[in-house]
Parts: sequence; C-alpha cells; structure tokens
Amino acid sequence: MAANGVTAVLLLSCPDQKGLVAAVSEFLYKNEGNIIHADQHTDQEEGVFLQRVEWELDGFAIAREEIEQAFQPIAERFGMTWSLRFSDSTARIAVFVSKLPHCLYDLLARWKMGEFQAEIPLVISNHDDLAPIAGDFGVEFRRYEIGTQTKAAAEKEIVALLEDQRIDLVVLARYMQLVGEKFVARYRNKIINIHHSFLPAFAGARPYHQAHERGVKVIGATAHYVTPELDQGPIIAQDVAQTSHRDSVPDLVRKGRDLEKVVLARAIDLHLRQRIVVYGNKTVVFD
Amino acid sequence: MAANGVTAVLLLSCPDQKGLVAAVSEFLYKNEGNIIHADQHTDQEEGVFLQRVEWELDGFAIAREEIEQAFQPIAERFGMTWSLRFSDSTARIAVFVSKLPHCLYDLLARWKMGEFQAEIPLVISNHDDLAPIAGDFGVEFRRYEIGTQTKAAAEKEIVALLEDQRIDLVVLARYMQLVGEKFVARYRNKIINIHHSFLPAFAGARPYHQAHERGVKVIGATAHYVTPELDQGPIIAQDVAQTSHRDSVPDLVRKGRDLEKVVLARAIDLHLRQRIVVYGNKTVVFD
Amino acid sequence: MAANGVTAVLLLSCPDQKGLVAAVSEFLYKNEGNIIHADQHTDQEEGVFLQRVEWELDGFAIAREEIEQAFQPIAERFGMTWSLRFSDSTARIAVFVSKLPHCLYDLLARWKMGEFQAEIPLVISNHDDLAPIAGDFGVEFRRYEIGTQTKAAAEKEIVALLEDQRIDLVVLARYMQLVGEKFVARYRNKIINIHHSFLPAFAGARPYHQAHERGVKVIGATAHYVTPELDQGPIIAQDVAQTSHRDSVPDLVRKGRDLEKVVLARAIDLHLRQRIVVYGNKTVVFD
Amino acid sequence: MAANGVTAVLLLSCPDQKGLVAAVSEFLYKNEGNIIHADQHTDQEEGVFLQRVEWELDGFAIAREEIEQAFQPIAERFGMTWSLRFSDSTARIAVFVSKLPHCLYDLLARWKMGEFQAEIPLVISNHDDLAPIAGDFGVEFRRYEIGTQTKAAAEKEIVALLEDQRIDLVVLARYMQLVGEKFVARYRNKIINIHHSFLPAFAGARPYHQAHERGVKVIGATAHYVTPELDQGPIIAQDVAQTSHRDSVPDLVRKGRDLEKVVLARAIDLHLRQRIVVYGNKTVVFD
Repeated sequence: MAANGVTAVLLLSCPDQKGLVAAVSEFLYKNEGNIIHADQHTDQEEGVFLQRVEWELDGFAIAREEIEQAFQPIAERFGMTWSLRFSDSTARIAVFVSKLPHCLYDLLARWKMGEFQAEIPLVISNHDDLAPIAGDFGVEFRRYEIGTQTKAAAEKEIVALLEDQRIDLVVLARYMQLVGEKFVARYRNKIINIHHSFLPAFAGARPYHQAHERGVKVIGATAHYVTPELDQGPIIAQDVAQTSHRDSVPDLVRKGRDLEKVVLARAIDLHLRQRIVVYGNKTVVFD
Repeated sequence: MAANGVTAVLLLSCPDQKGLVAAVSEFLYKNEGNIIHADQHTDQEEGVFLQRVEWELDGFAIAREEIEQAFQPIAERFGMTWSLRFSDSTARIAVFVSKLPHCLYDLLARWKMGEFQAEIPLVISNHDDLAPIAGDFGVEFRRYEIGTQTKAAAEKEIVALLEDQRIDLVVLARYMQLVGEKFVARYRNKIINIHHSFLPAFAGARPYHQAHERGVKVIGATAHYVTPELDQGPIIAQDVAQTSHRDSVPDLVRKGRDLEKVVLARAIDLHLRQRIVVYGNKTVVFD
Repeated sequence: MAANGVTAVLLLSCPDQKGLVAAVSEFLYKNEGNIIHADQHTDQEEGVFLQRVEWELDGFAIAREEIEQAFQPIAERFGMTWSLRFSDSTARIAVFVSKLPHCLYDLLARWKMGEFQAEIPLVISNHDDLAPIAGDFGVEFRRYEIGTQTKAAAEKEIVALLEDQRIDLVVLARYMQLVGEKFVARYRNKIINIHHSFLPAFAGARPYHQAHERGVKVIGATAHYVTPELDQGPIIAQDVAQTSHRDSVPDLVRKGRDLEKVVLARAIDLHLRQRIVVYGNKTVVFD
Repeated sequence: MAANGVTAVLLLSCPDQKGLVAAVSEFLYKNEGNIIHADQHTDQEEGVFLQRVEWELDGFAIAREEIEQAFQPIAERFGMTWSLRFSDSTARIAVFVSKLPHCLYDLLARWKMGEFQAEIPLVISNHDDLAPIAGDFGVEFRRYEIGTQTKAAAEKEIVALLEDQRIDLVVLARYMQLVGEKFVARYRNKIINIHHSFLPAFAGARPYHQAHERGVKVIGATAHYVTPELDQGPIIAQDVAQTSHRDSVPDLVRKGRDLEKVVLARAIDLHLRQRIVVYGNKTVVFD
C-alpha cells in the first residue's frame, strides 16, 4: 500500500526562476514516480524558491542508490542546495540535559513508543542528576565536567563521541550551557534547542521570572536551531499558554513544562520527517 | 512588481494519477508562466488529487481570455474538475441577516476598508431591524416576509434578485432561517454560513444555551458551506475560546460574537482568494 | 514562609443566602487564620453558592484534627456540602489502561518528577501490553480478564483491591472499557477519564475517525468525571488543536496524544489540589 | 431580578493582613448586601491583598450615595486604595486614531450595538483620514496638528477638551503618536493602548516587520495602560495567532488586525466593568 511503502523526500532551495517546478516534476514523471506530497514556497522578497517533494520508491524507475546521481544535473542547472532522504532511514539522536527531567522523560517515552523515526542511544549532561532516568530507559549516559576552563576540551571530546556514535541530531533538552562555536559549526542546523519563552521576548536566563516580573498574560516556548548567538537561531516551532495574575513563578514553570515538551517534540518530529528548510535565519516548515 | 501584478489562479481536483503535476507545470513553463504559489494535496484513501496554482499574468504567453481554452485539453486528459480566476476579479456578495448586527457590522466595515476583493451591494433580511446599518454603509437593504407559507415564493424572488444583481457569493451572517433546497442547489458551494458552535457539537438551535447546559470548557464557531442538511455542510474554518463556570449564557454569547466575526470573515476571505476546494463533504483549504 | 507551609483547603457548596461569606471569613478571622487564596462562585440560575478557601495552618488557633468539628455548626446552619483537606496530604492513584501507553508514560513520569501531590502505587489493565512500563517505574501491575461474562466479577475484585490499597482517585488513561455502575457509584466524582474529542462532539468510539470523516478543522480532548452514561459526566478540562486537510487519521491520533496527556494531567492536578466542585452535571474549577 | 438589577462594585488593594475579608464581608452582611460576585488575590511576594466584590443595591441597607462614607472607616483601618462604582454608570470614552480604521470601526460598532457600558462622544486624530467614519456613526471628530513643535500645546488643548467633555477613558486605537507625560499623568491608568505585538517582544515601531524579519511562528497583540515609557505599561490583555513562512508582512498585518480589535475591546470591557486593579507595573484582572 502506498501510504505504508518507503518514500523518497527531496528538500531543495535555490534562486527563484521559471521552469523549476516543471523540471522537478518532469524528472519524477519520466521515471514513473508517484508523488504523494509536494509543497513549495517562494520568498518573493529574497527571490528564493524552496520545495519539498515526496514520492513512492515502489515503482520508481531509478534504484534508490542512484537517485542522487540522476538528479544531480537538474540541481546543478538551477543552482540548488538540496538533500535526499528515505522514509525508512533512522536518525540517531543525542539528548543533552542538565538537571531538569521533564523534556528528557518526554523524549525517551516518545522514542520508546515509536513516535520518532529515530534512535536515542545517548544522553549527555554536565550533571549526574538525570543518569538514573537514562538508565531506566536503557540509554547510555555520559557526564562531562563543563566549566570555564574545561569547556573547550570537553566539547572536543563530546564531538568525537557524537561522531563515533554517528549522531545525526543533537537535542538540547533544557541543557543549561552555551554550546561552543566549533560544536555549533560542526552540527550546523542539526542542533535543536528548546527555550522557555516566546522568543524574542525573554531571551537569556530565567525567562519565567522575567515574564512574571513583566506581568504578561501569555507565556510561551520556542524550539530553534542553535547558532553561535544565544537564542537567536532560526525558529522552528512556538506555542503559548494563557496565564493570569494567579500564576506565581512556580505556576508558570509548571505550565511552561508542558509547552516545552510539546514544542520540542514537534520540532524534532518536523526535522526527522524532512519538513524543514533553513534559509537565512528563518525556517520554512512544510507541514 | 510580481506581488502587485495580476495573477491567475487554477483550482483543480481529479482522480490521482501519475504525470498530473508534470502536465500542469509543463503547461505553465512552456508558456513562460512564473509560478508564485503552488500547493497540492492527495487524499490517499479516496484517490483524489487536488491542486491550487497561481502564476503571474505579466509575461505569460497566452492572453488571459484564451487560457481556459488552452488548458482544456489537459483538463480533459486527466478528468479534472477545475476553475480559473484572476486576482483582479471582484466578487459580488449578498449578506443575509435577521436581527443580530455584529457580523453585518463587521463584514461591512471590512468591505469598506478594502479587506475583501469583493463588493457588497445587497443585504437581505427577514426582519427590518438591521436596515439602518445597511443604510449607514450605503448598501441596498431588502426585506422579505418569510413564513411557512411564503418561504418558497420569497426564495424564488430572492434568487431572481441575486441573479439580476449578479451575486457570486451568499453569506448567511446569523440569518435565522433555513435556506430551501432549490436555493441551495442554485448556489452550490457559494453559500457560507456561520454557526455559533464548534460543529458537530451543538448543531441546531441555541448552541450557547446547549454549551452552558453541558458545562463545556471551550466554545467555538464554525463557518461552512450550506447544504440541504442543517449544519452538515463542508467545514471551512473553526475556532474556539476558553470558557469557565464564571461565564453565564450572555457571557458565552459575548465571547462567541468575536469568534463568529473572525471565523466568518476568514472563510469569506479564503473563498474569495480561491483557496478552497470542496470534495465530498469536506474542504481542502490551501492557505 | 507562608507559601511553603501547610495549608487547609475548604471546599463547599450550598443554597445561596446572605451572610455566607461573612460567616466563613469570620470563622477564620476569629481563629487567627491567614487566608492565602479564596474564590467563590454563585450560580444565579440555580441559586447555588460555591466557595474554595485556603489558609495557613501555621498560627491558626484550632488544631488541625479539630477544625472539622469546629466548622460543623456553620456548615449545618447553611446546609453546606463540604470537605476539608490539608496541603500535605498525599492521595493514592490507580491508573487504568488498555494498550495505548502515552498517557501512562506521561502520568508515571510526572509522578516521578513530583508534579502530583500523590502516589501511584497501582496500574490496572485488561491487557498485558503495558506491564513492562509499570515495571520500569516500579509500580505494581494487575491484569484482569474483562469480558461480557467476567466483567461484574472482575470489577468486584478490582474494587476490593482499590479499597485494600486505600486508593483515593481512579484515572482512566485510555482505558477502553466501560466501567460498571457499581464501580462508578463507589467512586463517585473520583474517577477521571480522558476522552479523545472535544465533547459532546464525537462521543463514543473512534473519535479521530469521526473527526476525519466530518472534516473538522479542530480536534480536542476532554477530561471528565465518570458517570454511568458514557462520555456524559461533568467536564473538568478541555483543549483543542488546529488541524487541516493534510492530517490523516494517524496524524490526528499523533496530535491528539499530546492534547490527551496535557488535558488529563491538568484535570488530575486540579482534583488533587482541591480545586474542583461538582454540582449537577457540571464542575466549578477554582483555578 | 438580581442579575438585571443595579449592583455596586468595590475594588480595593492594601497591605495583606488578617481580618480583611472578614471586615468587608461583615460590612456587607450587616447591611443586608447580597454578594453576587467576589474575587480576591494575594500577592505573596509583595504582601499585597486585592479584592473585587459586587453586590446588589436592591435591598442594601445603605443608600447608594452614602456607601462611600459608610465604608470609609474600614478603608482607613486597613490602609486601602479603593474605588466604588455602580453598574448603571456610563463611562465616556474618547478614541484616538491616526490613519488605520479597523479598531475605530470595531469600537464604534460595538458601542452602537450596546456592547460597552459607555458612550463614545469623541474621536481625536492627528490626521483627517478617518473623519468620515466618525461622521457615519454620528460622533464628533477633532483633528489636531501634532508635530515636534506643536505637540505640547496641542495636548494641552486636548486635555482641556477631554475635561470639558467629561471623558473617563482614553483609548489609543492605533494612534501613532507618543502621548506626553503631562497627559499621561492626568489620565493615569485611564489610557488604554493597543500594541500590535506580544509585548515585550517587538516593542516600538513596525512590529509586524520585526516579526517577519525574525521568522516567528506566532504573532500577537497587547492591550496595556499607558505610562510615560513607550510600550512598558501594565499589560491588561494579550492574544496570539499562529503564523507560518507563507505569511508575508501584509498577511501578518491582516491577521494582526483581528487580534488587535479583539484584544483592545476585551481590555476596554474589563476596564469598564471594574475588573482591573493596577499595582506596581502589573494588573490583576478579575474575570
């Protein structure tokens, strides 16, 4: 059945120009590709075209390992930045945490229930507190001492570990540490952070305290790709909840936890299903 | 400039089959069409393909009055149900009301502010109450006596008036009357109603009373195309608001008015911008 | 510090009459009670007064074990239905499940993180599937064969077990079985169910299929107390999420899971913090 | 009938102390007051107690013009800041606008429909554009030249006009001008502004452009009391809407208009129904 078969997903962006859609659809049609989803966006101001197209491998005239090569001439002709993935590929995620367990619990439970097309083989932390949770779920837990002096060296070790473990996606699940520039550069658009406010409001530390102080009537959470500038990366997903004067800071924290969990999981899911294209400092989310 | 120029919008649905996207994009590409939006959906269960594509007329090789004819062979080849509109066309709306003014005020103000690509030349009612509002906005107001005995005849007259006035879209803005089958058949998928609940909950009369009685914690509003069965037509837009035990029925009515206005206006706007395809008893909304 | 000290919570309802608020506040004031929260509601139509008042035990002139007796005369004078609880009391919850794990995972993780002022010593199911999850969290898992013939006897056993375990609250976390009348009567307003639709829409079986069939643009979840009539009990909490034609039934199921988890947890939390009064078939939620 | 009769509303704040609730409820009880709503809040950190209590005048033992005097001793005893209003009083609103009509249309329509317990006798602007709208609704329109040199003098004139017209509430309905300090001081907590973002994000000019630039996935609107610091006053109400990469700046503006209208109207309604207490730079909203 189509819906259950393996599909190929092509994500691409390039300067907007005539004939783009025709060229891609012609390529698929000539090779007997059955498109099951296609979505595109043109940023008129920037003159950028972005597309996501998904088709069934079953019946496609080109063998899956040869599709990249077959598509290459089209990509070159239009100057595309592009990637090709298959729906049966399984990403490997490393989750970074500090002391707060709610996002970790949530991600591990989702993984165990099969919500993500991914494995979570590794939890990394700058504290020991959450080691037992990783243990309960049978996941390796590594703790690194990360201080002002030790950070650069620790992150070098961490990157080596991530590479050794063939990690595709790094998730900062309330990891209370800035990630260094080299690390960020190595995993460009592959590190997702959850920030506990509706950015750009309340960037930085203690956003629930800031929100309470300012007396806002909504709080939020933001999942974004990590860039070297704190809380400034491309936003993937955001959600908010109503609050009132009755909510103390602990109440905001409690309400916020549910936002954080849901928004972070949504962003991970979108990333894993190849639904996000980053361009400039923004995302296009083909949902 | 592209964003301000006139565009053509093609809306189509047909049995899903290979080569559809290629054929449409090839047609546009060969004729120098610059696509600025394209969206499509495949209903896997029903095997139905639906598409919306919008391109600039400026630079297109086919004169606007000849596009239909030029596209006809493709439409026939794939068995398409389709329509073609231009972004500079202006629809003509008749608004039907009874006694409640909030949706009428809202629609007339939006029209005056230029929010809709439409004219509102006509307000029709089964009561006199709202005649002064239509008058303030310089819109013709017609009242019809609509009772059990008089309804069929009145609706015949009304349809004649709508035809005479070249009305494209009928909006039931809290019109407290069932519309007859002949009327509905004549304006199939061209009558939009606002119902003051999140359908299918609380269909029929007095939904806010029903909601209060049931003790729900959210109320809603639903805009849908009208079919012969009351409150059963294809849903276009829905929204909800939180409520609590503090909300009496008048409070629900007050909160609900804002939902009704916004949801109705959103549905009209989507209709006017050719963003809705109806198939079966559902809508695909390309937003 | 006040906010961390133990508090007493009085929940009451009675026929509306003058002097109620004065009598309660006088009682607290005379006994040196420092009120930290008070909320009340009058249902004008039904003539019912409902109140929640919370004060610090520290400094209160009456010993905690004697407060009930001291308040009794006031309760009698006004014909109150009332209850008194202390913020350091810990409820005992039994979670009922069938095959779907998401709510169970979520509840057990929240419990482990200390989100609930409660213990979860017991998971009960009509299937074996989720036994390992209970095991991972160190919670006793009991499976009962519940068929048409065996149900009455099984529920009798279950009630005996619940009583033996001193269970205060039963949570049906996607438990796909009707609970019998005797069971319901025994735990009146102490059984919370999560239904995966915004009731009263899509009561009964397979609500996501119903929602997809109807083409709604929002889906929802509803937590309610269980009464003998299926999905008809007093609603505690509801929330919704936007959907579109792109959402297949599995997508609705996926989106719905997050709604279900959050709405169910919110209802349990409100119950445990003595914030709900049931009257008639409705709730007053003092949040 | 109680619900339709005239009520008195007492709004108060003072240092938190024992006996407050008892004193107020005793005062009402002794004088045969039938409380129909009462709500209170204690800010534990600041040690501030805030209360709103509403009771029926019908049957109350003190004549309405003597209530203030009768309550004065209690207010003094506890050091209260307080106000007393009656539900049949009608406020007088001046609406300030510049060139954008959507909030003005919305407010005038709500006023005409009787949604507000208020009159709108006056529209003030620094431009002529919206004069015809005020005219259509039969409201006086005054235009003032407000430039760097003329502002102080113009605002002096405006304040004189507001006083002459006995204006109780000033509403800045997309008025694109900073209001001077003297004006603000004269109408402290009586000037409501609508800002077209979820403050504190995107304070200042062109928030929709800022939001688009940043690539946020939600936009918002904020109604707040005006203080001398731009966009820094106590927040009354906020709401948000989901957006996506498909939304250009004009789309954000269009979606935002509906948020602005609804949030501004909600704030005005809360103000008029005496549901807001300002303390520090925050509001307590007794809804």
